[in-house]
Amino acid sequence: MKSNKNLLVVSAHAADYVWRSGGTIARYIDEGANVSVLVLSYGTRGESNDLWRKEGISYEEVKEIRKSETEKAASILGVKDIEFWDLEDYPMVLGRKEQDKLAKIIRQKRPDTIITHGEYDYLNPDHNDVYDFVLRSSIMANSRGVQIEGLEVTKQMRLLGFEPHQTEMSNFKPDVIVDITDAFEKKVKAMECFKAQGHLIEYYKQRAIMRGNHARRVSGNSDYQYAETFCTHFPLVIDILD
Amino acid sequence: MKSNKNLLVVSAHAADYVWRSGGTIARYIDEGANVSVLVLSYGTRGESNDLWRKEGISYEEVKEIRKSETEKAASILGVKDIEFWDLEDYPMVLGRKEQDKLAKIIRQKRPDTIITHGEYDYLNPDHNDVYDFVLRSSIMANSRGVQIEGLEVTKQMRLLGFEPHQTEMSNFKPDVIVDITDAFEKKVKAMECFKAQGHLIEYYKQRAIMRGNHARRVSGNSDYQYAETFCTHFPLVIDILD
Amino acid sequence: MKSNKNLLVVSAHAADYVWRSGGTIARYIDEGANVSVLVLSYGTRGESNDLWRKEGISYEEVKEIRKSETEKAASILGVKDIEFWDLEDYPMVLGRKEQDKLAKIIRQKRPDTIITHGEYDYLNPDHNDVYDFVLRSSIMANSRGVQIEGLEVTKQMRLLGFEPHQTEMSNFKPDVIVDITDAFEKKVKAMECFKAQGHLIEYYKQRAIMRGNHARRVSGNSDYQYAETFCTHFPLVIDILD
Amino acid sequence: MKSNKNLLVVSAHAADYVWRSGGTIARYIDEGANVSVLVLSYGTRGESNDLWRKEGISYEEVKEIRKSETEKAASILGVKDIEFWDLEDYPMVLGRKEQDKLAKIIRQKRPDTIITHGEYDYLNPDHNDVYDFVLRSSIMANSRGVQIEGLEVTKQMRLLGFEPHQTEMSNFKPDVIVDITDAFEKKVKAMECFKAQGHLIEYYKQRAIMRGNHARRVSGNSDYQYAETFCTHFPLVIDILD
Amino acid sequence: MKSNKNLLVVSAHAADYVWRSGGTIARYIDEGANVSVLVLSYGTRGESNDLWRKEGISYEEVKEIRKSETEKAASILGVKDIEFWDLEDYPMVLGRKEQDKLAKIIRQKRPDTIITHGEYDYLNPDHNDVYDFVLRSSIMANSRGVQIEGLEVTKQMRLLGFEPHQTEMSNFKPDVIVDITDAFEKKVKAMECFKAQGHLIEYYKQRAIMRGNHARRVSGNSDYQYAETFCTHFPLVIDILD
Amino acid sequence: MKSNKNLLVVSAHAADYVWRSGGTIARYIDEGANVSVLVLSYGTRGESNDLWRKEGISYEEVKEIRKSETEKAASILGVKDIEFWDLEDYPMVLGRKEQDKLAKIIRQKRPDTIITHGEYDYLNPDHNDVYDFVLRSSIMANSRGVQIEGLEVTKQMRLLGFEPHQTEMSNFKPDVIVDITDAFEKKVKAMECFKAQGHLIEYYKQRAIMRGNHARRVSGNSDYQYAETFCTHFPLVIDILD
Repeated sequence: MKSNKNLLVVSAHAADYVWRSGGTIARYIDEGANVSVLVLSYGTRGESNDLWRKEGISYEEVKEIRKSETEKAASILGVKDIEFWDLEDYPMVLGRKEQDKLAKIIRQKRPDTIITHGEYDYLNPDHNDVYDFVLRSSIMANSRGVQIEGLEVTKQMRLLGFEPHQTEMSNFKPDVIVDITDAFEKKVKAMECFKAQGHLIEYYKQRAIMRGNHARRVSGNSDYQYAETFCTHFPLVIDILD
Repeated sequence: MKSNKNLLVVSAHAADYVWRSGGTIARYIDEGANVSVLVLSYGTRGESNDLWRKEGISYEEVKEIRKSETEKAASILGVKDIEFWDLEDYPMVLGRKEQDKLAKIIRQKRPDTIITHGEYDYLNPDHNDVYDFVLRSSIMANSRGVQIEGLEVTKQMRLLGFEPHQTEMSNFKPDVIVDITDAFEKKVKAMECFKAQGHLIEYYKQRAIMRGNHARRVSGNSDYQYAETFCTHFPLVIDILD
Repeated sequence: MKSNKNLLVVSAHAADYVWRSGGTIARYIDEGANVSVLVLSYGTRGESNDLWRKEGISYEEVKEIRKSETEKAASILGVKDIEFWDLEDYPMVLGRKEQDKLAKIIRQKRPDTIITHGEYDYLNPDHNDVYDFVLRSSIMANSRGVQIEGLEVTKQMRLLGFEPHQTEMSNFKPDVIVDITDAFEKKVKAMECFKAQGHLIEYYKQRAIMRGNHARRVSGNSDYQYAETFCTHFPLVIDILD
Repeated sequence: MKSNKNLLVVSAHAADYVWRSGGTIARYIDEGANVSVLVLSYGTRGESNDLWRKEGISYEEVKEIRKSETEKAASILGVKDIEFWDLEDYPMVLGRKEQDKLAKIIRQKRPDTIITHGEYDYLNPDHNDVYDFVLRSSIMANSRGVQIEGLEVTKQMRLLGFEPHQTEMSNFKPDVIVDITDAFEKKVKAMECFKAQGHLIEYYKQRAIMRGNHARRVSGNSDYQYAETFCTHFPLVIDILD
Repeated sequence: MKSNKNLLVVSAHAADYVWRSGGTIARYIDEGANVSVLVLSYGTRGESNDLWRKEGISYEEVKEIRKSETEKAASILGVKDIEFWDLEDYPMVLGRKEQDKLAKIIRQKRPDTIITHGEYDYLNPDHNDVYDFVLRSSIMANSRGVQIEGLEVTKQMRLLGFEPHQTEMSNFKPDVIVDITDAFEKKVKAMECFKAQGHLIEYYKQRAIMRGNHARRVSGNSDYQYAETFCTHFPLVIDILD
Repeated sequence: MKSNKNLLVVSAHAADYVWRSGGTIARYIDEGANVSVLVLSYGTRGESNDLWRKEGISYEEVKEIRKSETEKAASILGVKDIEFWDLEDYPMVLGRKEQDKLAKIIRQKRPDTIITHGEYDYLNPDHNDVYDFVLRSSIMANSRGVQIEGLEVTKQMRLLGFEPHQTEMSNFKPDVIVDITDAFEKKVKAMECFKAQGHLIEYYKQRAIMRGNHARRVSGNSDYQYAETFCTHFPLVIDILD
């Protein structure tokens, strides 16, 4: 593996990147890649249901808890470069200003791969909006005529989409399966930071087991125990001999 | 690359494997893989239109020409292990006997990857029949309870599908793009063996150029000049860090 | 049937809910459900073609006719709770303010089922915009962190989509078929209120006959004479024993 | 619930009906329905991999073990009417004779619902063949002109498809979700009969948990703990008021 | 219009071609085309439900009635060239012998257009089998190497698919809409020959009205009153200027 | 052909209409049609990569070059009526004001056919935005209640979509194929005006050759040498006898 690889992960809410790509992130970091995580909102309105059950809790209090949880989770995964935009969620407004800002980040970070939400999540319009936002911003970053403070144009990077909570109704198909066996323990610990979403921890542990089963079945390699899957926006230009 | 890789290519007619995977085959061989090609028919009835224009030519004569052409093409690509089943085409009968025979070959050759026709070619039912045949035979080979003369059961191999002649109407999407820049010259020479299908030589040269363009566009790597694409039956279990 | 059921119908234009769900509405009401209808626009610009043929007619005059027609139709169906937003149509602007307003209504009415436009109508962008609007608003209403004047969060309700005017090109598939045999007479009378769209009355009568035929064919129950169909956003959690 | 309902389950191999509909079967039986199970093969060749690991085991021995396991599982679920056709699997031959035989059974059992394999399982051609076979046989049974020993023609029954092992790649979407909370314990015990497929027991327990999560999320009803899902061949003619 | 056009219609059962293309056939004939109809079966088993209600009626009697009805209908449409294969239906066996026979007919009739069943009818496997059969036979006829008694190879003809009874669930989309206003009266009279399927006469009259509505809506031409639609296997090579 | 036909082509960037419909435009003009071209942006930011390689070049300079190139290209194709909106691209803002403006143009030009971008280009969000924009504007123009300065309402026109750069990943299927053999020379000359996109000239020449091959294959007419393809938004109401 080439240790100088750059990975950018863009997460709609505070915990999305952990549930859906925590193992993959940990693996990249373990192998020396530069991983940047961009968290657009804390999911205060839309993805903090359990916190809001506490009588009298305020928007700011919920936000602070979410922020602290996700910072801890990121730290467990080994993420050192994390940025929060603190946008409101449900709904999320991602306009021209945000596009310019992300395009600039892409030119600065120069990711070989961007991981974000897939094209369609039938339960969560925020996720769909973020997919659209990241795709558009990356295309701007990759276009020489889009001048951004003298930053060098980027080349087309790989674009991977998270597996959504309910896959089939969201038209999700796993295009690539990533073995996270070695990173699974870290992922579990990172997930456990999100105390108010305890039911999701078990849910995504079982998902990793299921995808590990699929990885073994599809590859004939019985070493895989846990896996995450992603869809791809682009065909893979791969060396099929490996 | 691991030089001990095994590749099995199953071709409905005499030239399919050359038009659609000639470059990929040459690359595998150049890097030391063991490549086996199985040609199910000579395409005497269905894919030798120009030869039949010669007044009075017989079925046997057409077949001999096709056989000699494909042997020459295989030799140019570096293929040493080629087998002909000499089935009739248009239509092609692929029953239980043929399935047992292919399952046995799969257990003997033990391919890491099988390349054959994709799921649907809207112009060519033979291609569809071969897809179905190869899929079923591979599943038998991979099942321990299917006992074949003491041959050891195989593990799930990768299954790639050729790009058909007309892609969009055949529901084909390129899942993987293979760089064939270094092998392109060999592919052209191999294609030139099929004298009676001269129009296809230029067609598939241009297709390799178009797919090279797509490979550059999608990967940001401007070194790719020529490419072939394939669809995948299974998700790819890949090391996305490469 | 449980007579305390709540149904909310959201209609882009003045007559959509009648053509596409008039029979279902009447049945709900007959069985004691609380039915609320929300009409977003009068369809003055986009769905009043015949009225505009009258020389010199004004926007306000067209609107008044449409309003009076739809009120009469609603009354025939038995609808007592109907609300008009009087938005402009063709195009329809449904922004954040409208989303907040609908989310509030959803929390007040607490529908068990929302019926609105389906995901895609290839002839009518307003319908698509309304689908998107209702889906997003319902997700906000169902999220505890979206605080709306102390109104209690709602639970996930069923979401059904109208059958569009031309179904196949709009990717519509009938997921559920509702028997409207007993309500058909009322539906016809309600449709007859829309004098300027006389050709549609016959059109939707025949549609109900066609769907009645399908209901019989698919269920083996020959009692069905007239039916309406809907697509579902969510899988149905049903007691299949019934 | 109407206790005189008839359910017919058609299973390609010995355990398919347990993994995929064991909970639903148990629920039907608990509520007084007449449930018949038809097992076409024992899965001796294709779905008994672990048994074949035992040195020197014979086809007949594997078959006997599978037979005894599935009989025990059926008994735990409460199934009293089970029939074995003892067809060979991998591949499975289902011709005209078998169609006539199943059509006759359908006319005798007169099922309100048939549950069998869904349209496409990308890993298992036997399952696809059984889907096609059951659909064709049911259409024959429902056609008055198909004369079968004086048996009365059947009416169109509901046709549900099992959830396959890997859903997304098999184009499976859950059309209906069935609550199996009360039947889950029985399902687990039934699954535990298949000793040679121990890894699948955990796999399908977790699947039931995942589908229970989906049932809660989609319905807003937090009582659901475990669920099974099915696709439907036909639209559902339902009373949406319930 | 070019009066020397050849049209071949292949119908699974005795009445399919009338319900689904009767108007189009009549129009072709009125304009001087040579129309041939091939009826593969009389639909004695699968599409004569009402006839079988008559106590004691025999297979031969049903067949004779169907034969006489379809001959009368063909005559009303102006069809002079009609051929019956008298195959059994439900299921229909269409093997190699039948393919050779149809390929020969195609070479003799040399149709510019073949109309037959579309790719998928979710209610009628016979229709799907006939689609597959006609496609395969036409590809054989169009291949020079398929030698048939010295008959000249045909060129690729247009291939249109009937609209099935239930369109949406059968994945049918209308690719082309044919105005049958002038031929509608004949079509109705032809349909009225099928006395035992009286409910279908009204069904297909209303379908023609619905498609006429669509034709007007899509074209902006208000002259269309009745229409039939078809799907196309191939893209249309058309002169878009007309 | 009817020489009084009106064609409107709407192009997101300066060269789109040339690459994708240059031959079709030239044919229309040669046969006497009135062709109007609307170029929404010069593609200065997003589709002028090579020009931006020149050190120190300014936005205005790039724009001027693009403008002059496209004017020359239009002139070669014979286009006399061309309009530039000079919008910014990457991203392109197409709001209510632009919709009103295009709706007005449509009422003035009264096109029988509008050609613009297809529904989905997976590499270019601008193209998708333009598709949506043109569709919405045309629907407004065709609606009598949308009053625009006394301009007469239009009837539904045909709506064709360009073939995108990478077709399969963009879900593009060629619904119609247009022979451009006689216009190909003009198209090549027009393409050669875009000096900064030299690689695309060869790309689209080869595409025209490939589509010519498809036109021959699909029609059986060997006269076609070069072709362009389009998708259709609406079914074609055609006289299939031609």
